[in-house]
Amino acid sequence: MPTVMAKAGEHPADEAKEALFAALGSRFSERFSRSQSLREQHANTLTWLKVQAPDAVLFAETTEEVAEVVKACAASRVPVIPFGTGTSLEGHLNAPYGGVSLDLSRMNRILAVHDADLDCIVEPGVTRKALNDHLRDSGLFFPVNPGADASLGGMAATRASGTNAVRYGTMRDLVLGLTAVLADGSVVTTGGRARKSSAGYDLTRLLVGSEGTLGIITSLTLKLYGIPETILSGVCAFDSLEGACNATIAALQMGVPLARIELADEVQMRACNAYSRLTLPESSTLFLEFHGTEAGAREQVETFAAIAAAEGGGELRWAERQEDRTRLWQARHDAYWAVRALKPGADLIATDVCVPISALAVGDGNFHVMPLIDPADAAGRLRVQEFLDRLVARALAFEGTCTGEHGVGQGKINYLAAEHGLGVGVMIAIKKALDPLNILNPGKIFALP
Amino acid sequence: MPTVMAKAGEHPADEAKEALFAALGSRFSERFSRSQSLREQHANTLTWLKVQAPDAVLFAETTEEVAEVVKACAASRVPVIPFGTGTSLEGHLNAPYGGVSLDLSRMNRILAVHDADLDCIVEPGVTRKALNDHLRDSGLFFPVNPGADASLGGMAATRASGTNAVRYGTMRDLVLGLTAVLADGSVVTTGGRARKSSAGYDLTRLLVGSEGTLGIITSLTLKLYGIPETILSGVCAFDSLEGACNATIAALQMGVPLARIELADEVQMRACNAYSRLTLPESSTLFLEFHGTEAGAREQVETFAAIAAAEGGGELRWAERQEDRTRLWQARHDAYWAVRALKPGADLIATDVCVPISALAVGDGNFHVMPLIDPADAAGRLRVQEFLDRLVARALAFEGTCTGEHGVGQGKINYLAAEHGLGVGVMIAIKKALDPLNILNPGKIFALP
Repeated sequence: MPTVMAKAGEHPADEAKEALFAALGSRFSERFSRSQSLREQHANTLTWLKVQAPDAVLFAETTEEVAEVVKACAASRVPVIPFGTGTSLEGHLNAPYGGVSLDLSRMNRILAVHDADLDCIVEPGVTRKALNDHLRDSGLFFPVNPGADASLGGMAATRASGTNAVRYGTMRDLVLGLTAVLADGSVVTTGGRARKSSAGYDLTRLLVGSEGTLGIITSLTLKLYGIPETILSGVCAFDSLEGACNATIAALQMGVPLARIELADEVQMRACNAYSRLTLPESSTLFLEFHGTEAGAREQVETFAAIAAAEGGGELRWAERQEDRTRLWQARHDAYWAVRALKPGADLIATDVCVPISALAVGDGNFHVMPLIDPADAAGRLRVQEFLDRLVARALAFEGTCTGEHGVGQGKINYLAAEHGLGVGVMIAIKKALDPLNILNPGKIFALP
Repeated sequence: MPTVMAKAGEHPADEAKEALFAALGSRFSERFSRSQSLREQHANTLTWLKVQAPDAVLFAETTEEVAEVVKACAASRVPVIPFGTGTSLEGHLNAPYGGVSLDLSRMNRILAVHDADLDCIVEPGVTRKALNDHLRDSGLFFPVNPGADASLGGMAATRASGTNAVRYGTMRDLVLGLTAVLADGSVVTTGGRARKSSAGYDLTRLLVGSEGTLGIITSLTLKLYGIPETILSGVCAFDSLEGACNATIAALQMGVPLARIELADEVQMRACNAYSRLTLPESSTLFLEFHGTEAGAREQVETFAAIAAAEGGGELRWAERQEDRTRLWQARHDAYWAVRALKPGADLIATDVCVPISALAVGDGNFHVMPLIDPADAAGRLRVQEFLDRLVARALAFEGTCTGEHGVGQGKINYLAAEHGLGVGVMIAIKKALDPLNILNPGKIFALP
C-alpha cells in the first residue's frame, strides 16, 4: 500500500496515485484495470454530459474489499466512484477529479428472502429484473421500476422511482436498511428488518439518494409486496391533454388505488408506436395498471372508466395476457430509445422535474421531457439549456423539485440552491463531517469550494 | 441581548444565563416565565424518568421568534428544548443541562389545505385531532394516530406512528417537507409539495425523528388521504395469543390491506374493560379496522373472517356507528391510563420495541409493554430494568429495533450502540456538524462526551 500521503483537500500527487494503482493492481490483479475502453464505458453518461473517465476500474466482490479499496484510496486522496449498471442520467458516474470507478456488478447475490416478513437482503449489484426473476415463485415482487434494468444499489443511491411509485413508493420508502462503507473505510449498518423504528437519526434515508457521496452501499434490505391476485393493464386515449390530466386527478382524489398511471403526449406516442411496433392511438394517452383482488381490480376499472368518459377519454384498451402487459409497459419504458430513434445521431437530454399533483395531474406529478439536439448545432444546444432552466424555474414556482427521480449528479447541480436555499449548506456540512477529504464521488450534487 | 459570551462546549456561566433571561424577559414579557410549576409541567415525562425542569419557559408564536430565541440562547450557550404537548414517553422534554423550554403550542395555525394535492401545511403546535377536525368537511384526513392528542411538530420530531401505520405509514412517510430553525438560528426549508424528489440529501427525513437535537420544526407539509367510503371497525377474540398472531401474518401475506390491526392480551383487555367501561372478551383480542369502498371493505372482512376462524378466532364483533368506532379505538388508545388505573400510585414504564413481522406477527411488529412499579420497591424497579434490557436484547436479536415509535430521548440512550454500532458515531458526527455548541435538546438520543 502507498506510503506517499497527500493532505486533506489536496489533489493527489501523481506519485501517490501511481503508487496506489500499483498496489491495487498487485492486490486485485485482473480485477483492477486501466484499459481506456473500460474506463470510458464506466463513465457512460447516456446523456449530453461530456464523458470524464476515471483513472482505473476495480471490480469489488465483498464489503471487505470495498472497505479495503476506500481506505487505500483515502490514504492517497484518490476519489472513488461507485458503479452499478451505468444507467444513470445526470453524469453520476463521471470522474471529474479522476479516481477509481468501483464496479459493484459482481456483488450480485440475493442473500436472503424472508417470505413471512415481506423483505429480502441483496447485494448492490443485483438488478431489479434479476431480483424479480428470483422472487417469482415466492409470489412476491419488488415494485420499483425505473425502466432500465438498473442495479438495486444504484437505484438506492439515486433514490430511484418509476411507474409503480404512485401505489408502492420509491426507493426512499422501500429500503428498510443498508450496509455502507464510509469515507474512512469503516462499515456501517443502518435500519434493520423492523417495519418501523424511532431509534435515532434516519441514516438509511440519508444514504438513499446521496449518490455515493456519503458512503458506498454494499447490501440492502428491501421491502417486498405480494403479487396481486389480479393485474389489469391498459391504455386510454383522450381528446385533450387536459382531459387526461383531469381524469387522473379525479381518480386520485377519489382514492382509486392506481398501481400505475403515466401520460404520454402525441409525439411520444408516435415515437413509441414506431420504435416498439405498436398501433396505439397517437393522441394524449394514459398508460394504466390496476392491482387487487379480482373483484377489487374490476371495481377500480369501472370507477376509472366512468371518470375517463366524463373527460373525453375513449374506451380502455386492455392487455389481458402477461406478455401483452409486458410489451405495453416495455413500450413506455423504452420511451428513451424511441425518442432517440426519432433523430439518429442527435444528442438526447432525458430530464425530469416533479410538481404537486394539481400542477400536473398525472400520477405523482413527475414530468419527463427529452429534447433532441444536433451535436453540431451550438445555438440549438443553448436554446435547449434555456428551456431546461425555465422548466426547473416553473417546477420550483409550483413548490416542486428540479428532479423527481433522476437525481442531481452533475447535470442539476446549478439548480440545487434555487430549490433548497440554505439547505444546500446543511448538505455540505454533512458531507464535510462524513467525508472530510471529499473522496467519495466528488463533484456530484454540489460543487464544494 | 447578552454580551457575556461562553465558549463552545462550556456550560453557560451563571452571569451569561442571567443576562440572557433578563433580556428574554424584557423582550417577551409574560410569554417568558420562570415559574416553578410551569417549568416542572414542561419537563412532564409521563414516565418513571426523573423530572429535570428547564430554567425557564418561553411561548413562541412565529418562526422568526424561534430563530431569535435560538440565536440568543446559542450566544450564551444555553440549551433550548422544544415543547409541543408534553406527551412523549422517554424523557424528551427533560432539561438535564437546564435551558429554555420553547413552548410551540401557540403556533397552532393550519396554514393551507390543498385538497387537489392531498396535502396541507401546518404550524408545529397543531394537534392531530385539531387537524382532523379542521379537515372533516373536506373529506380528507391525516392518518397518523399515536393515541395521545400530540402536536404534529412533536410527532414529527419523534417519528411518531400509531395504529394506522400498517396501511398509511408513519411520520417518516407522511411529512413531505418542513421548515426548521437550526442551531445557529438560521431557517431552513426542506422537501416541498412534490410527491417525490431525488434532489440531494433527504433533510426532511433527517430532521424527522431527530428529537429536536438538529433543528426546531416550525412548519410541516403533511400528506393527507381521502376519508374512505366505508370504515368497518371491530374486535375478534382468540383462543390463544399464537392464533391471533398467525391470523395476522396470514392476512398480511395475502395482501389484505388492513387499515389497523392491534393485539391486546388478556390482562390488557381486563384493564381496558375496567377503565373504559366496556364488556369485551377478556382473552387475546385483535382490534381491527378495514377501509375501502363498500364492496372492497366487505371483501376484506370476509377474507379476514375465514383466516381468523381457522386460527381459533371467534366471531368478529362490529362497531357500526362512528361513535362506537371512536369508543372502541379510544379504549385501545387509553391502554396507558387503563394500566395506570390497575395499580394507583405505582410508576408506569410505557415502553416499546419493534421486530420483523414473523417474530411478532401483529401489524407492523411493534410490541408495547407497560410494567407497573411500586415507587418504594427498589428491588422491583431493578427487576423491571433487567426485564427491559432483556426485551431490547431479544428485539435486536430478531433484527428489530429498541423503539418502534416512542423514540430514544433519555430512556433508550444506552441501547443505541447495541442497535446501530458505528452508526451512533455517524449520528454524533452529524450532530456536531450541525450543532457544534450542543444547545439543541442536549442529552437526548446519545450522550455526547
